[in-house]
Amino acid sequence: MFTTILNKKPLIHHLTNAVTINECANMTLALGGSPVMAEDILEVEEMVGHADAVVINIGTLNAASRASQLLAGQTANRLKKPIILDPVGMGATTLRTQFTKELLEAIHFTVIKGNVSEIKTLIGQVGRSKGVDVASGETLDFQVVHEFAGRLGTTLVVTGPVDFITDGKRQVKLTVGTPRLGYITGTGCMTASLIGTLLGAGYDAFEAATYGTYLMGKAGEVADEAAGLGDFRMGLFNAISLTTEESLKGVLTSGE
Amino acid sequence: MFTTILNKKPLIHHLTNAVTINECANMTLALGGSPVMAEDILEVEEMVGHADAVVINIGTLNAASRASQLLAGQTANRLKKPIILDPVGMGATTLRTQFTKELLEAIHFTVIKGNVSEIKTLIGQVGRSKGVDVASGETLDFQVVHEFAGRLGTTLVVTGPVDFITDGKRQVKLTVGTPRLGYITGTGCMTASLIGTLLGAGYDAFEAATYGTYLMGKAGEVADEAAGLGDFRMGLFNAISLTTEESLKGVLTSGE
Amino acid sequence: MFTTILNKKPLIHHLTNAVTINECANMTLALGGSPVMAEDILEVEEMVGHADAVVINIGTLNAASRASQLLAGQTANRLKKPIILDPVGMGATTLRTQFTKELLEAIHFTVIKGNVSEIKTLIGQVGRSKGVDVASGETLDFQVVHEFAGRLGTTLVVTGPVDFITDGKRQVKLTVGTPRLGYITGTGCMTASLIGTLLGAGYDAFEAATYGTYLMGKAGEVADEAAGLGDFRMGLFNAISLTTEESLKGVLTSGE
Repeated sequence: MFTTILNKKPLIHHLTNAVTINECANMTLALGGSPVMAEDILEVEEMVGHADAVVINIGTLNAASRASQLLAGQTANRLKKPIILDPVGMGATTLRTQFTKELLEAIHFTVIKGNVSEIKTLIGQVGRSKGVDVASGETLDFQVVHEFAGRLGTTLVVTGPVDFITDGKRQVKLTVGTPRLGYITGTGCMTASLIGTLLGAGYDAFEAATYGTYLMGKAGEVADEAAGLGDFRMGLFNAISLTTEESLKGVLTSGE
Repeated sequence: MFTTILNKKPLIHHLTNAVTINECANMTLALGGSPVMAEDILEVEEMVGHADAVVINIGTLNAASRASQLLAGQTANRLKKPIILDPVGMGATTLRTQFTKELLEAIHFTVIKGNVSEIKTLIGQVGRSKGVDVASGETLDFQVVHEFAGRLGTTLVVTGPVDFITDGKRQVKLTVGTPRLGYITGTGCMTASLIGTLLGAGYDAFEAATYGTYLMGKAGEVADEAAGLGDFRMGLFNAISLTTEESLKGVLTSGE
Repeated sequence: MFTTILNKKPLIHHLTNAVTINECANMTLALGGSPVMAEDILEVEEMVGHADAVVINIGTLNAASRASQLLAGQTANRLKKPIILDPVGMGATTLRTQFTKELLEAIHFTVIKGNVSEIKTLIGQVGRSKGVDVASGETLDFQVVHEFAGRLGTTLVVTGPVDFITDGKRQVKLTVGTPRLGYITGTGCMTASLIGTLLGAGYDAFEAATYGTYLMGKAGEVADEAAGLGDFRMGLFNAISLTTEESLKGVLTSGE
């Protein structure tokens, strides 16, 4: 846990998927934040008002959740709260691609985090999204992402064997991590929760995006000593809960 | 596991939140009960008919779940089944406060369990609920809670550094536990599942409320040897599954 | 993990319950597959089109999920994708029994997996389903199941102390497992995910059903060294992730 975050206990409002909702809550807590997952449209605006940051994840949509996500995002913009989007599976179905576009037209995101397929679809190239946890083997020109981030005024995170973070001015590449992070569900979602928690604690967008991505990769390296995937999964929570602010020294400049 | 519960296998019907629904099912099983989570309004009444106790938790609401919770509660009353309410985040949003009031007007609860903010809101004082997992640093006059429980004819549980359980006649304070129970999501929800399981197994309301609260606190103490929060979380399930009826000796009179 | 599955990374589309959705995703990954849980009716057909197999589980229904499950199943049939049904709690409520019948009339399932109560209800005998995780102590004439499977043209799996798998021609009994598999939630659901993953990887229905059932039982035996239920639960994921194709040698002929 980060003592500075624990002392502030930023409230991180998640509108997220049903698969990894518990993991996202626990990851937020492990870093020192306080998660809340309120999706009822009758309370979304009020809860965003209480929140220090908002996390939107389109992993499992339905008509009600789509309406709530739009309202939450617009409210966050109105109240100037930081907000992160995880466009899970963007490109995999027309619904996800269209709904993400709808979100992007209605809401300005502080950070958007996706894998190569998702970010490729985001910037208008055709991705080859197959599912939501599938490494696609695709490549992406990071310079294009960098320029797109600048035009959008948003910090973008592309996760993969090399993670790339850019706000259109600054950029960093991270090689931290382990392939096993792809063998449990929700490590991407949890990364967004870490970034959201850092945003809620007052880190700026580029720092929060870089540190959150780094923390998950590093947790994967620490947990990698586990023989099986059950222990590896719990190892991620162990690692984050035992991490302190000290671990971030030099990360911003380590990549490139 | 409690052998007496395991032999009876009481069916505990949960209408609960999406975040901790798996944890609640596993905690019910760890004590020896049998969980079922049926929320479809077309089967709620029939499932309550099968159940030995009902657990209602408002952690993540939507229009459908609110209707089902009301129907489940009214059915439980009609069939004289014990029912526990966990008013998660009551006071945090108007919806949660209003809906809890609606539940209280339509349903008589056997037990209501909340943190200081939630119970404060419940008894008409203004709470300062910020999220759902946030320790508020608020204080509460337990004598007021005691009298309110008497008027309501309900056993009330206030969780916190000191847990307070009262049915308006008997009362007990418990100091068991560890602050780390606040650093994983759902320990409150799981406490309600333990209480519900004890109710379903035939314990009276005051006993079930006290024992369930005690068991979670004690599990936290046992699990506290874990270095990280992942192992601590699993340690709670280990502890409850390895607990027997013997562990409750003297608990009812230990507090005060 | 099965290297052959990991190399193919079959996409397993789940329309499943809220309680064990995370566990099902992680179990699919642990064997080498890629899970996706898309329930929005606007994307169900498209996602089934991407999928290598479909898993339908009626553990927690609502109006939207029922419509999506019907559409997913019909699409799977149309596209000739393998599909498995887990009729959780069939017989416990009228809704579950009726909806399962509706599914069976509209969809041809490659595999149906249930416990004794569920399969008894399925073949028209009256089950005594009480919840969803309750061992009923009922018995079932496996010969009747065998003949029913033949008439249905579906592979049936009956789980219990003795697991019975039949496609109406071949049949096998398995005695692998541990009673503790009944003390955590979702082992049945996860078995369906394992079978679904094997179907998606190209195993035929009888093989996939037998191997998936065997793998979960064997994982239970391996994990049984854990003292408590938290570690036992994680032990299941450890075990599956450390299993290889070698472990299946002789299983098809071991039973009978």
